[in-house]
Amino acid sequence: MKAVFRNVFSAVSRSLNPNPHSSIFLPTLRTFSSIILPPSPFPFRNNAFRLLSATSHSSSMAEDGTSSSVEKQFESFRCQLEESGGLRERVRAIAMEIESATRLMHANLLLVHQSRSVPEVLEKASSQIAVLKKLYNQLGVVLQECPGQYYRYHGEWRSETQTAVSLLTFMHWLETGNLLMHTEAEQKLGLNASDFGLDIEDYLIGVCFMSNELPRYVVNQVTAGDYDCPRKVLKFLTDLHAAFRMLNLRNDFLRKKFDGMKYDLRRVEEVYYDVKIRGLADKAEEVSYDIKIGGPDDHGDPAGDEGTHKQS
Amino acid sequence: MKAVFRNVFSAVSRSLNPNPHSSIFLPTLRTFSSIILPPSPFPFRNNAFRLLSATSHSSSMAEDGTSSSVEKQFESFRCQLEESGGLRERVRAIAMEIESATRLMHANLLLVHQSRSVPEVLEKASSQIAVLKKLYNQLGVVLQECPGQYYRYHGEWRSETQTAVSLLTFMHWLETGNLLMHTEAEQKLGLNASDFGLDIEDYLIGVCFMSNELPRYVVNQVTAGDYDCPRKVLKFLTDLHAAFRMLNLRNDFLRKKFDGMKYDLRRVEEVYYDVKIRGLADKAEEVSYDIKIGGPDDHGDPAGDEGTHKQS
Amino acid sequence: MKAVFRNVFSAVSRSLNPNPHSSIFLPTLRTFSSIILPPSPFPFRNNAFRLLSATSHSSSMAEDGTSSSVEKQFESFRCQLEESGGLRERVRAIAMEIESATRLMHANLLLVHQSRSVPEVLEKASSQIAVLKKLYNQLGVVLQECPGQYYRYHGEWRSETQTAVSLLTFMHWLETGNLLMHTEAEQKLGLNASDFGLDIEDYLIGVCFMSNELPRYVVNQVTAGDYDCPRKVLKFLTDLHAAFRMLNLRNDFLRKKFDGMKYDLRRVEEVYYDVKIRGLADKAEEVSYDIKIGGPDDHGDPAGDEGTHKQS
Amino acid sequence: MKAVFRNVFSAVSRSLNPNPHSSIFLPTLRTFSSIILPPSPFPFRNNAFRLLSATSHSSSMAEDGTSSSVEKQFESFRCQLEESGGLRERVRAIAMEIESATRLMHANLLLVHQSRSVPEVLEKASSQIAVLKKLYNQLGVVLQECPGQYYRYHGEWRSETQTAVSLLTFMHWLETGNLLMHTEAEQKLGLNASDFGLDIEDYLIGVCFMSNELPRYVVNQVTAGDYDCPRKVLKFLTDLHAAFRMLNLRNDFLRKKFDGMKYDLRRVEEVYYDVKIRGLADKAEEVSYDIKIGGPDDHGDPAGDEGTHKQS
Repeated sequence: MKAVFRNVFSAVSRSLNPNPHSSIFLPTLRTFSSIILPPSPFPFRNNAFRLLSATSHSSSMAEDGTSSSVEKQFESFRCQLEESGGLRERVRAIAMEIESATRLMHANLLLVHQSRSVPEVLEKASSQIAVLKKLYNQLGVVLQECPGQYYRYHGEWRSETQTAVSLLTFMHWLETGNLLMHTEAEQKLGLNASDFGLDIEDYLIGVCFMSNELPRYVVNQVTAGDYDCPRKVLKFLTDLHAAFRMLNLRNDFLRKKFDGMKYDLRRVEEVYYDVKIRGLADKAEEVSYDIKIGGPDDHGDPAGDEGTHKQS
Repeated sequence: MKAVFRNVFSAVSRSLNPNPHSSIFLPTLRTFSSIILPPSPFPFRNNAFRLLSATSHSSSMAEDGTSSSVEKQFESFRCQLEESGGLRERVRAIAMEIESATRLMHANLLLVHQSRSVPEVLEKASSQIAVLKKLYNQLGVVLQECPGQYYRYHGEWRSETQTAVSLLTFMHWLETGNLLMHTEAEQKLGLNASDFGLDIEDYLIGVCFMSNELPRYVVNQVTAGDYDCPRKVLKFLTDLHAAFRMLNLRNDFLRKKFDGMKYDLRRVEEVYYDVKIRGLADKAEEVSYDIKIGGPDDHGDPAGDEGTHKQS
Repeated sequence: MKAVFRNVFSAVSRSLNPNPHSSIFLPTLRTFSSIILPPSPFPFRNNAFRLLSATSHSSSMAEDGTSSSVEKQFESFRCQLEESGGLRERVRAIAMEIESATRLMHANLLLVHQSRSVPEVLEKASSQIAVLKKLYNQLGVVLQECPGQYYRYHGEWRSETQTAVSLLTFMHWLETGNLLMHTEAEQKLGLNASDFGLDIEDYLIGVCFMSNELPRYVVNQVTAGDYDCPRKVLKFLTDLHAAFRMLNLRNDFLRKKFDGMKYDLRRVEEVYYDVKIRGLADKAEEVSYDIKIGGPDDHGDPAGDEGTHKQS
Repeated sequence: MKAVFRNVFSAVSRSLNPNPHSSIFLPTLRTFSSIILPPSPFPFRNNAFRLLSATSHSSSMAEDGTSSSVEKQFESFRCQLEESGGLRERVRAIAMEIESATRLMHANLLLVHQSRSVPEVLEKASSQIAVLKKLYNQLGVVLQECPGQYYRYHGEWRSETQTAVSLLTFMHWLETGNLLMHTEAEQKLGLNASDFGLDIEDYLIGVCFMSNELPRYVVNQVTAGDYDCPRKVLKFLTDLHAAFRMLNLRNDFLRKKFDGMKYDLRRVEEVYYDVKIRGLADKAEEVSYDIKIGGPDDHGDPAGDEGTHKQS
């Protein structure tokens, strides 16, 4: 029993503590401090003394000896704030690199709207996945320095991560016609739940962003003569929307994003309606029934494209 | 029992995982769900299946068997979101109790502005400290259910904690004339760095709030005839301000609060000036040196008041 | 028991009184207080006395004995505000349960856009009506504690009720092709004008929300080959719009919602136009005249679909 | 038991019903309609028929006889909305008269800042109280037409009522130095809890508005040589603030107003500080101790004024 509680204690001691480095991670602290400060065993103490000695004459604290303890406390605050500030900056810096990697990915993916062959588009975009993986690995290393503070700095990288997820899920859908799972997304980013995981809400928001891309994709595919695309996208979006509806979302950003998904759904329905009422979809279906090998995602693979090209 | 705690431990060992409990705390989850849902062991599951199986006929996912996995994933998301939502509500509820406890404390402390004797005021206000301690203990218990997520829910209790700190530091200053240290504040709230600690910025913001109370206190003390009070408060505030200036604050709420501190300082300087040029302070000082028994807080108690009355 | 109800009655007889319960519902009050306060029969009283007696020494009020009356007045305010606050929270909690029940209903109803057979869809969705009825009954019970204050807390449940009405009217239309009447809606929700009624504006706003669903429905029905649907929906919407135009709406939310209805009407007209100029509607009408058994809702059930498929 | 429930039912039937006139108050309805409509037993029916006959040819509803019921429903909605709309307008009209009566009162009261004798000021201002009483009586009569809907139209008169309360409480304080109680305010306005009561929050907000007036009053009184005024106002405001602190205010307008009260308190403390440090207050107190008959509110009655005039 005692042992058990010791476990809990030692365990918790690394998790609920909002500022654990004060005592535990002094090595980390020193090494880190030494980066941004003149290499001295006691980087701030000296000028700290200067600072306070200025006031300490007229200081009641000096008189009853409390001054030094206040001094020590703020000295340690200074270290910890500087450390957490520096850590935040490093996280921010990596997040910015992630952002520019996703920008490149997006630029490549946009070509799909000009009916470039999907494989060609995917190949280009995929080249950035390795970069992302590297960056998230760096991020994990930085966060290892402050166990239990994932959510303290989360705000610094979350929107970049949502964008990354939206691009990965879109690519995966183009390739397979299926939804990229949370665990699959973690794999692609080199994350894992047991170490440095992908926040569920970030994943879900990313999926919503991906859904926003689909109406445009359908419109351009139909323009390019792929009349079966609306049917497939509609199926995918309908199922995705139904799955989201299972979630009891509180009234926050994710909820707002999800509410937007229904407009994507409606737009795709309208495009499907247009091809249907002109009897174009039917032809498309016949065709796609002939070449039914690749499944509903055939439009994603070369064969599928040829298929659609044939009939246009 | 032991098993459960070992689970906690293993969970904690992965403290960077943003949502580790999906599996571990099913009891918690079930009990919670049952509150807001028709009493059934798996309230949504059946329905969830119905929902998706309903769509899956016309579903590309169904065809290649991915539907079930999507279904499972969102089912698990639903559980995890409901769990974290419930946890957030429980944290919020405790934070509201903390808020009403601090409100009572504050109501009692305000009497000091009517030159009620400090010991009497402190006695009343202190009665709430035990309540606060109990509530922070409850908060710690709840947060132990989600190790490593202190900062995920931090926003729910931080302003209440800042208020609590401001009241505790003010009381401590009234009692001792000194600054309540971060560790002392943690002790009073039953927190500790190695377990469930007090965030440094919350502590510092609380101290700033306390400083905002001092000009009013000085004004009312002088009105009540304690002409030595301005000198003491000025010393305290000057040292406090100097200590804060050691910190390299980023441009956030704490920085804004600290910038406000200089107005408190200025106002106290003006009051000190008023008593000085009227030759009231000097008398006060002589007197207060004579009767230097009660320590820096003598200005608070009746004896001190009489002392000051004698000379006026 | 009887006594209590007589209290209710006497309370009700003063139904214009904005806050009649201060005295009557002390039990309710006490139980509620005990939730958010240290368990004591009169949680604040003692403290309240302390609070004011503390100030009353230096208090002009004390001198002429008014202090105690002020004290009593605020004490009673505290009780009444706490009671109305608790009541508001209970109403809010039920409203949230209503919201999640309607969410499930909506999820089921959405399947109608995937041309699932109407009876199947309705059966699923209907399962929630009993839940809603239960919740509105609970709401009624809570509101009976504060007769004459329906509109004091109305804001807490009105948008949820509007959603519920929109779903019920849509279901009824799918089933019968007719508008669900206000009294019918009340029956389904277990409300009644003489007891706890359905606010007319909430009903009308709900009907407007339902109208917003129809263009999407028409588009998807035509896509699914039901070319007679636009004609029927257009008739329904035209009559509904005409009926609304009888109302002299002031410039509020309902007015805004109604103004939106004309866009639904326009979109349905366009779809009807699309099927007409392609000669699809005419065939559909012949057919639907032949198979006129299912009544206006035949378009919804499989038979109807086959009928329309035959001709395409 | 049955009898009891019948009581509840009949009781509730007039209170929880959001739109009771549909059936019960037809006389009221007819009489009212006749005000704003050509006197005809069935004011709208005719043109209602015209309206719908226009659409009913192409109406599926006509076919199956549901049209007439829809028509009847909207006809009755039209009546009820017109009635509630008209009622709202009448309430609004009275509220505007209340507003102009309070404007006159305020104009008279403002003279107190120019150190006009309080009795003179009060006499002028009081003349409007009778007007207010008349208007609130009219308001009560209108609200009697819709029992249980006090809070439906509350928004139309509440801010005017808050202003009225603030003026009455200020006048009462000038006259007696005490707080005007909720019941006293109701009396002055001819309201009573058992019939048409004064909402507690409106009363409390009015008191907050009154507190906002006090710093200015103190400043002007000191300027006019009444050095004892700050002490009295400070006592009053301190007790009032303490009393408010007993209330557990939710985060709404009242809470915001109350939070503002502390600035009034601080400002008055500063003025008291100014007179104190100059030794003016002490003289004042001596004086006011001599003429201690009128109590702390003597500054309110002529004697008090002369008293202050003497010494200035």
